[in-house]
Amino acid sequence: MGAALRSIDDVGTIACVGAGTIGGGWAAYFLARGHRVRIWDPAPDAEERLRRLIDAAWPALEQLDMLDGADRRAWSVHTDLAEAVDGVGFVQESAPEDLALKRRLLEDLDAVTAPDVVVGSSTSGFGMTEMAAEVARPERFVVGHPFNPPYLIPLVEVVGGERTAPEVVDWAAAFYTALGKSVIRMEREVPGFIANRLQEALWREALHMVDNGEATVEQIDRSIRDGPGLRWPMHGPMLTFHLAGGEGGMAHMLDHFGPSLKSPWTRLEAPELTEQLRAGVVAGCDAASDGRSVAELMAERDAGIIAIRRLLGDAQPLGDAQPLGDAGQGAS
Amino acid sequence: MGAALRSIDDVGTIACVGAGTIGGGWAAYFLARGHRVRIWDPAPDAEERLRRLIDAAWPALEQLDMLDGADRRAWSVHTDLAEAVDGVGFVQESAPEDLALKRRLLEDLDAVTAPDVVVGSSTSGFGMTEMAAEVARPERFVVGHPFNPPYLIPLVEVVGGERTAPEVVDWAAAFYTALGKSVIRMEREVPGFIANRLQEALWREALHMVDNGEATVEQIDRSIRDGPGLRWPMHGPMLTFHLAGGEGGMAHMLDHFGPSLKSPWTRLEAPELTEQLRAGVVAGCDAASDGRSVAELMAERDAGIIAIRRLLGDAQPLGDAQPLGDAGQGAS
Repeated sequence: MGAALRSIDDVGTIACVGAGTIGGGWAAYFLARGHRVRIWDPAPDAEERLRRLIDAAWPALEQLDMLDGADRRAWSVHTDLAEAVDGVGFVQESAPEDLALKRRLLEDLDAVTAPDVVVGSSTSGFGMTEMAAEVARPERFVVGHPFNPPYLIPLVEVVGGERTAPEVVDWAAAFYTALGKSVIRMEREVPGFIANRLQEALWREALHMVDNGEATVEQIDRSIRDGPGLRWPMHGPMLTFHLAGGEGGMAHMLDHFGPSLKSPWTRLEAPELTEQLRAGVVAGCDAASDGRSVAELMAERDAGIIAIRRLLGDAQPLGDAQPLGDAGQGAS
Repeated sequence: MGAALRSIDDVGTIACVGAGTIGGGWAAYFLARGHRVRIWDPAPDAEERLRRLIDAAWPALEQLDMLDGADRRAWSVHTDLAEAVDGVGFVQESAPEDLALKRRLLEDLDAVTAPDVVVGSSTSGFGMTEMAAEVARPERFVVGHPFNPPYLIPLVEVVGGERTAPEVVDWAAAFYTALGKSVIRMEREVPGFIANRLQEALWREALHMVDNGEATVEQIDRSIRDGPGLRWPMHGPMLTFHLAGGEGGMAHMLDHFGPSLKSPWTRLEAPELTEQLRAGVVAGCDAASDGRSVAELMAERDAGIIAIRRLLGDAQPLGDAQPLGDAGQGAS
């Protein structure tokens, strides 16, 4: 990239461009991590919405990720974009999920932001190649996709566009990691990235079931909440099926249930279960097991499920529940 | 149904027919709930596998669902089916997921089981109509589909076949509920029921992504584990999206992101987002909110995510991790 990137330790003030549920959630998190935040949001009630969102998020942040000396008042709202990004060390864009709007906004951002500053976008599905098509310095634009609420969910998906500088993708991954996030760095642009593709597949099947009168919204939610949803915080879907295979693990699952992939359970077209796919999935689960036997993983899973089930009963809401305003850019 | 059903309080001894991961897990749970268990399993090592599975499950059961006076030794293994079901008040069938095998087994079970005894099947996808096609008393056969591990996951999907007596479906739903389970009673036979259809959609998309080199197994698991998976134990996918819509809730989500259902994010064919579907989903979320505002649900969600993230760090495996044997019937 043209200008040298600054050290992650020197980021200092961060600009949040767009402050709906996601942009505002990012602002609260950046504040909790000791950064000053300058917010650009054209809405007349932006400041009031921000205050309510930060007040609602702060007690949660105090319990998990807050650094000493974090100042919940170290933020300002600006209606002028150049003023908002003046002197900042990083920009997080969280505007509404509208491609034309984001293309114009990134072009404006590029024109007013110092050349050595990286710009991350919270887009939940667009690729940076299409979003940054018109900017003069595409090399410093990268996707940093969070999950709702950004001040509590660790996952951030990081992926560059065709013209993003590789060192910028490296820098963003290192920055979000230093910020305390769980970063997935993708090597390729995939619409919807990873987690949203998976959520979307489940979501679409749920809509089909509601549409066909096969299940109610409550049944769909409870089927996940009291079922597979109790396992996924410990192990994702792959390792979960690996355990369902017993001692045989994923290999047993694929050999035993592979044929059922052809069954008409979902409207999702099934892939060909090739030897290569089978080998790749089995190897991936072996790697993910990281030396832990199926029995050890089961004991780990059981301990986690017990703890989750116990605490969900007494989990109390934190602080005063305040309306947080409209979603704006809606990462799901 | 011909014979009068016995009272749920008089079930007493339960027969577990098939004792792999699922059948054995059911046996451990029934024991923990104070029942005696008679197990039918033709495998020569069945008794040894059962002992290891029950030893591994017991410490977990002691922490959650065990009733006073539960006796971990109150079980016996039988190779003769008639002997296994002799004098029992309920039968849980958990044989391998093979339709021909299950049809023969249910026919044999029907012949040797007292007429007033209900038979529940752990099948993870077959309908009771096809499974009980050959039995003389189809009215007492019902699906009671658990999730792995059956001794910890609360969900049980209950659905009858075309010839199942409605009072038997009522009885099974009441029985599993009295047993401490979270019962979803389905009014229609749907292949894969509800949770497995949703899991399967996610699972298939994951396989496509691995197959296309779009994501690794580890990225797929972490994308759920550190992302949406931290929300689902509190709220299922529908209420989760309801919250992602901010104050506008699900209505905002559908109006704002409805068009993206047409985007090529998954290989799952998208349903037509009709006014009726929209209204049904919105109404379902309003009902699920049960008077709680979006802000209240957010505070509830946040408290839960904090607690889960905190405890997952210190969740310790319980007891000695012992291999639990092959999956046998593999509910996932």
